[in-house]
Amino acid sequence: MTLSPVKTGERLRLRLKLCNFAAMGPGKADLLDALEDTGSISAAARRTGLSYRKAWMLIDELNRAFRDPLVSTAFGGAGGGGARLTPTGATVLAAYRRLEQLAAQAGADEIALIQSLVAEEPAPPP
Amino acid sequence: MTLSPVKTGERLRLRLKLCNFAAMGPGKADLLDALEDTGSISAAARRTGLSYRKAWMLIDELNRAFRDPLVSTAFGGAGGGGARLTPTGATVLAAYRRLEQLAAQAGADEIALIQSLVAEEPAPPP
Repeated sequence: MTLSPVKTGERLRLRLKLCNFAAMGPGKADLLDALEDTGSISAAARRTGLSYRKAWMLIDELNRAFRDPLVSTAFGGAGGGGARLTPTGATVLAAYRRLEQLAAQAGADEIALIQSLVAEEPAPPP
Repeated sequence: MTLSPVKTGERLRLRLKLCNFAAMGPGKADLLDALEDTGSISAAARRTGLSYRKAWMLIDELNRAFRDPLVSTAFGGAGGGGARLTPTGATVLAAYRRLEQLAAQAGADEIALIQSLVAEEPAPPP
């Protein structure tokens, strides 16, 4: 039995260091995407498989790292408040997604070369 | 006081998924570089700040993921054996380093855009 092949889009993961305490990688990008779709931290946490606390901490880390926050929250009100991307948040998320695409395109030959050397049926660790 | 700026070369980290149990990222690449320089797993582990056991496990993971091993070891003999990159190991390491360069070049504008929005004196987490 061969293991299921890795999908191209999931193969390369980028982690961009922002400052001495914060970085942005696929986890935070997926969280921002989910937040944009759902308008709620708790719904975005559920969708990305995070606890509410963990999602909140990741967003707080991003908000502290940037000059302007990436996510704004509104407490109370009809519907119990919500959360959404600020213009800066939308800009950063879009730039990160473009960065992923550009990197995968630019490195396609190197990725294919490395992948061509991977065993077809890798022996998993004992 | 401003925090020390992040160096460009360390800003973007790439993690390439190889199969369902193995990936290659900056840690393994640095370990292979150190192995090439030192010819010894224990010296390479010291240089990269890993325990011997951890370095051995990372190399074992790589060797299992590829059709041919990336690192060959010789036990015993004068000098107590040693370890070195195989031709496949050298090919994979060089491709990974080129991938890093190509990705950083292709994404330079996006990285600069994101970096321009980072706070100059980020507020660290509480």
